[in-house]
Amino acid sequence: MALTVVGSIAFDSVRTPFGERERMLGGSAVHFALAASFFTDVCVVGPVGDDFGEEHLAVLSERGIATDDIEHVAGGKTFFWRGHYDHDMNVAHTDDTQLNVFADFQPKLSPESCGSQMLFLGNIQPELQRDVRRQSAASFAALDSMNLWIDTARDSLVAAIGEVECVLLNDAELRMLTEQPNLVHAARATMELGPEVIVAKRGEYGAALFTGEGMFAIPGLLIEDVRDPTGAGDSFAGGFLGYLDAVRIAGEHGERALRQAMAYGSVMASFNVEDFGTERVASLTEGEIAERLSEFKRLTHFEEAPIVR
Amino acid sequence: MALTVVGSIAFDSVRTPFGERERMLGGSAVHFALAASFFTDVCVVGPVGDDFGEEHLAVLSERGIATDDIEHVAGGKTFFWRGHYDHDMNVAHTDDTQLNVFADFQPKLSPESCGSQMLFLGNIQPELQRDVRRQSAASFAALDSMNLWIDTARDSLVAAIGEVECVLLNDAELRMLTEQPNLVHAARATMELGPEVIVAKRGEYGAALFTGEGMFAIPGLLIEDVRDPTGAGDSFAGGFLGYLDAVRIAGEHGERALRQAMAYGSVMASFNVEDFGTERVASLTEGEIAERLSEFKRLTHFEEAPIVR
Repeated sequence: MALTVVGSIAFDSVRTPFGERERMLGGSAVHFALAASFFTDVCVVGPVGDDFGEEHLAVLSERGIATDDIEHVAGGKTFFWRGHYDHDMNVAHTDDTQLNVFADFQPKLSPESCGSQMLFLGNIQPELQRDVRRQSAASFAALDSMNLWIDTARDSLVAAIGEVECVLLNDAELRMLTEQPNLVHAARATMELGPEVIVAKRGEYGAALFTGEGMFAIPGLLIEDVRDPTGAGDSFAGGFLGYLDAVRIAGEHGERALRQAMAYGSVMASFNVEDFGTERVASLTEGEIAERLSEFKRLTHFEEAPIVR
Repeated sequence: MALTVVGSIAFDSVRTPFGERERMLGGSAVHFALAASFFTDVCVVGPVGDDFGEEHLAVLSERGIATDDIEHVAGGKTFFWRGHYDHDMNVAHTDDTQLNVFADFQPKLSPESCGSQMLFLGNIQPELQRDVRRQSAASFAALDSMNLWIDTARDSLVAAIGEVECVLLNDAELRMLTEQPNLVHAARATMELGPEVIVAKRGEYGAALFTGEGMFAIPGLLIEDVRDPTGAGDSFAGGFLGYLDAVRIAGEHGERALRQAMAYGSVMASFNVEDFGTERVASLTEGEIAERLSEFKRLTHFEEAPIVR
């Protein structure tokens, strides 16, 4: 039981209507790993520079996350992102991106990372995702991507999608990838590229799941204090795959587990947005997660009643 | 047990990526009444012109809807709307609006309409909504509105909201009305204006319910063939209030019934979008509605499972 994640390790400077923070620990691999660490053993693969200190590593290792595959590039600087959100917190505005050590990143998985049964390919260049997939013996691999790669590296992305078991994308990205305006058709068209599990992330509105067996839709939790949505999608993926790895059930024959995993993904994303960067998730307890799952179940519960006229 | 609706009776010309239709029967009162007619007795109040024929009236009366309060304005023309949808079918583009007989509409409720226990004020000028509310003895009144009235008649709209028990608005409209970017805060601020039940409609993403007792969120059904979304919000309202009227339970002490009503609202909206105008809903059967409710329950069902690490 182990889950390896490859993706960005970053410093994020973020401004929202509720405040701003400079150079917080962030990146897809970090948000994913922290969320997944409540469910299973996690190894992080990714590059950092000289500006990445022991205190940043400690945020991961204190959650029991294996950091041996975090590659320190001497003389380099860690990936940096600056962005802001206006009143519509569903839309991130990028003000600056500095790839830094990420520009020449050539992932090398250690034997431990190679042997994980599950693999998450965070949003990086699709050829890098393919390279990592070839190195890994995982029986279940999932990938995330973004509109940039759909625009600039479509063939590579389509090939990468053909080599994984699961795709997690925003609903708009699924539509863009497949040129299908209807989400159900877009998910089916993505499935035809190879994966057996498609997750459509829908921001504050929740997520939808498509498998060979059927469909599942879940709203987002209704959160009163959304302070910083950065990393919510990766926290969702971390809760989703972390739970699946823990129960060792995924793919077509695990519809029940996949639905439970969608609920845990939603719960982890809901914590992520309540504070800046990793602050909320890094300091969570299992009890808080269980309590919010119950709250989520109550939030979404309705009974099937007959027409009574 | 009876439900009166006041709103537009219209001819709609609509173009979507899936086809186009000229001068279909439409309008908020029509879509609402057809959806509600599967649950309870409905009376429609609204004006039509000389171009409104027996065949249009028959669409309503064949569903058992009382049409005595449909006012025929001699020499007038029926309200007309022309619009189109591009690939993002969540956004309606208006190409033409002709108020016609609606410009001088002064609603007059017959004794039968006045005596309904429930009242729906479709999206019309807020002072007209207030006028109707004053004429009605309904113990539970709900209203819909739109960005136009928030912009141009805010004070009237706020007064109208203070005189009803329930508000149904799009989530963006609730945020705009209250100037609260967070939906939970926006719903609470709307509740402070008077109503005890707030429904946030979220297009294809479903809907959320806010009462003094708590919150409820439901995704939209995942519909493969969305041909024309016009009237989906009114069909939702019709299913929602129609079911509530049938079970005679609404307001703060009916949380369970309100949730069931949200599910029926979603089901009726899902049928509405499957074909142009009123075509799908007008020809529905109770069996189809029950079947889709079961499908919706399966679509959204998940079990609460513990963390197993």
